[in-house]
Amino acid sequence: MSIRAGIVVTGTEVLTGRVADANGPWLAERLRELGVDVGHVVVVGDRPDDLRDALAFLAGTGVPLVVTTGGLGPTADDLTAEVVGAFQGRPSAVDAELERRIAAVVERLMAMRGWRADAGSTAAGVRKQARVPAGAAVLEPVGTAPGLVVPPADGRSGPVVVVLPGPPGELRGMWSAALAAGPVAALLTDVPELRQETVRMWGTLEAQLAATLRDAEDRLGGLEITTCMREGELEIVTRFGPDAQPAYDGLLDALTERHGDTIFSTGPDLDAVVAGALTGRGLTVATAESCTGGLLAGRLSARAGSSAFLLGGVAAYANSAKEALLDVPEAVIAEHGAVSAEVAAALADGARARFGADVGVGITGVAGPGGGTADKPVGTVHLCVVGPDARLSRALRLRGSRTAVRDRSVTMAMHLLRELLLGGPPA
Amino acid sequence: MSIRAGIVVTGTEVLTGRVADANGPWLAERLRELGVDVGHVVVVGDRPDDLRDALAFLAGTGVPLVVTTGGLGPTADDLTAEVVGAFQGRPSAVDAELERRIAAVVERLMAMRGWRADAGSTAAGVRKQARVPAGAAVLEPVGTAPGLVVPPADGRSGPVVVVLPGPPGELRGMWSAALAAGPVAALLTDVPELRQETVRMWGTLEAQLAATLRDAEDRLGGLEITTCMREGELEIVTRFGPDAQPAYDGLLDALTERHGDTIFSTGPDLDAVVAGALTGRGLTVATAESCTGGLLAGRLSARAGSSAFLLGGVAAYANSAKEALLDVPEAVIAEHGAVSAEVAAALADGARARFGADVGVGITGVAGPGGGTADKPVGTVHLCVVGPDARLSRALRLRGSRTAVRDRSVTMAMHLLRELLLGGPPA
Repeated sequence: MSIRAGIVVTGTEVLTGRVADANGPWLAERLRELGVDVGHVVVVGDRPDDLRDALAFLAGTGVPLVVTTGGLGPTADDLTAEVVGAFQGRPSAVDAELERRIAAVVERLMAMRGWRADAGSTAAGVRKQARVPAGAAVLEPVGTAPGLVVPPADGRSGPVVVVLPGPPGELRGMWSAALAAGPVAALLTDVPELRQETVRMWGTLEAQLAATLRDAEDRLGGLEITTCMREGELEIVTRFGPDAQPAYDGLLDALTERHGDTIFSTGPDLDAVVAGALTGRGLTVATAESCTGGLLAGRLSARAGSSAFLLGGVAAYANSAKEALLDVPEAVIAEHGAVSAEVAAALADGARARFGADVGVGITGVAGPGGGTADKPVGTVHLCVVGPDARLSRALRLRGSRTAVRDRSVTMAMHLLRELLLGGPPA
Repeated sequence: MSIRAGIVVTGTEVLTGRVADANGPWLAERLRELGVDVGHVVVVGDRPDDLRDALAFLAGTGVPLVVTTGGLGPTADDLTAEVVGAFQGRPSAVDAELERRIAAVVERLMAMRGWRADAGSTAAGVRKQARVPAGAAVLEPVGTAPGLVVPPADGRSGPVVVVLPGPPGELRGMWSAALAAGPVAALLTDVPELRQETVRMWGTLEAQLAATLRDAEDRLGGLEITTCMREGELEIVTRFGPDAQPAYDGLLDALTERHGDTIFSTGPDLDAVVAGALTGRGLTVATAESCTGGLLAGRLSARAGSSAFLLGGVAAYANSAKEALLDVPEAVIAEHGAVSAEVAAALADGARARFGADVGVGITGVAGPGGGTADKPVGTVHLCVVGPDARLSRALRLRGSRTAVRDRSVTMAMHLLRELLLGGPPA
């Protein structure tokens, strides 16, 4: 039978959004691959009572496994290990051997960075980080903080709590050791697979999809279907056990029948679709961006292996840069304005020519909050993609913040690339 | 007296990380500015039982206010309004006037996008979105989904629940109406301010800071101090009521005394510091990026008003682009390799010259996962910034994923810019 788990993300910096949490989703996905379904991720600040409440809540939902992240640093506001130990009925004490190992890491770190090493001032912090609940398994530090696997004290019931550090690199580096620890390995034995499939559409409203799902309702047993609309893209994610594979196949048939012309992927995301189309046809691409300032090039280059298709891009913020680096004629800017279909086309052509790429992309727009006019308000964006034998253009009026306008412009450029390369639903 | 609140973020797409939650932190910050302290953000998938458990948990912590986000769409997995209504003892029914207004919005949306409008197929979804718990206040839709303010049913105790949609633009557009709603306005009357101040250091270990805080412990009453170390930057965030201002001033003195040479800001973040230094001195900047593929230009252009200092940048992914667009001599690449201090310097010089900027930045490195060699393993990054009268270079060996290496390289480039422009702790 599949099992469930809960996740606690600690840290006032996460709660207040100064740091975006990458750990909760990462852990939820890793657990899902193991057949473990996460029902709740609770984000708490650095108050011990709040953490205790969160642990009690998750234990109360009956999950056999809770994973915590963060709160393992040397400062007094980092309290996770101590609170989890107390919650599980296992008082903490300093592990002298561990203390020695952490001290060595801290010394090495400071020396590496050329920072003034003052072992005395760091000793108390190291000692704090070396405190281990009685009977807990220690996961060796990847940075300075050890992880812990803390089962309930003998005679108590409740979840096994895995305590991991907050820095994503440290957490991920410790994950396999956490899974191998006795109490966790025992939980995961014989858990069946939990499959996940994704269908992506462009040009169908969530309300239309809802009608399709209602009509197919009696054939969807065993499927957990969630839909999400963002920036015009409708994503349908379905989770199911191996027994429900036929039901999923039936769902896919129903979706294809009703919405086949808007489906652009039954798996890979937009970025993978575009990258696959470029590499599959052996084409190269170059970008010329004004309002998005390099974000499209940044997104294209985010994929490992992107050097196979991405030659580069120019963020041409100043008009002089559009002229000097991308050969946009001064007269075109003067006549139509920097934010115009004509300049978007000239940018795409310029990128293609200057980089010697097969495909060029041009983006120009008013990201705001300033710079809008009655004629070209904030959110006006012109896009153009040009390939060996086709050219596509779009004019957009986007709503939202500067960040939203920039992000959506980049997504629309990716859809234009997709349409140019593969056809499918028009961007 | 200050009050507390809880937040529930719904949506399997958030729980699994397919969508990063922007709403929880945004709401936490807005509430903090109003003097309302958020203790827990609970992320739940689209299961009604999980949402009910989360509401019960937060109600159990005694908070007078809970804000939910998401789950207001037309599909069957969007259940927030119905579940909250039931939780508050207020059964839902269709609001016919609201249904009419939502239907009009949906029609307009489909027409605008040129999508096939089939009013019949969307009617059930519209009807679902128009269901309102008895006695709840409706917040007019910004997109298609209305928000709700749902107090406990008469005679019941518990928090007021504010129900907001998931798309950030819709949520933010509805926020002032939510605050103005009677039950929320009543809660917020006479809540005192909750101040927040931030000190940022570069070159101090968290363990050293911990020692300073321990030594000053008896003078820190009334301050809630949290520290966060990431990518070498140590951030100290302090929250306090107006009464504790003198205690905060004392903390700032203590930090300055012990760590003054590593403090680079007592407020604005790194990006604001760099932008302020550039605009303050009337300098312009241009970038030349290899492994970071435009992310530095994207980051510099993220700020409103960045066109005052950013001329642009080149993402020179291919070596041919480094030569053609940035004048990096072919011989330098041949002799030292594309990832070298010499090429970083040539990139910085090329960006400066080609854009006619006062300051140029060059980044080249091996972001991985492939492309590493024994000599230049994955994570090897060379940076250079060059200004009118100075030049700074750094060679890094970064650990972590492709994303981590790219992000850290960009952050280090920002610190190099800061150092070049302002001095302060060396990057």
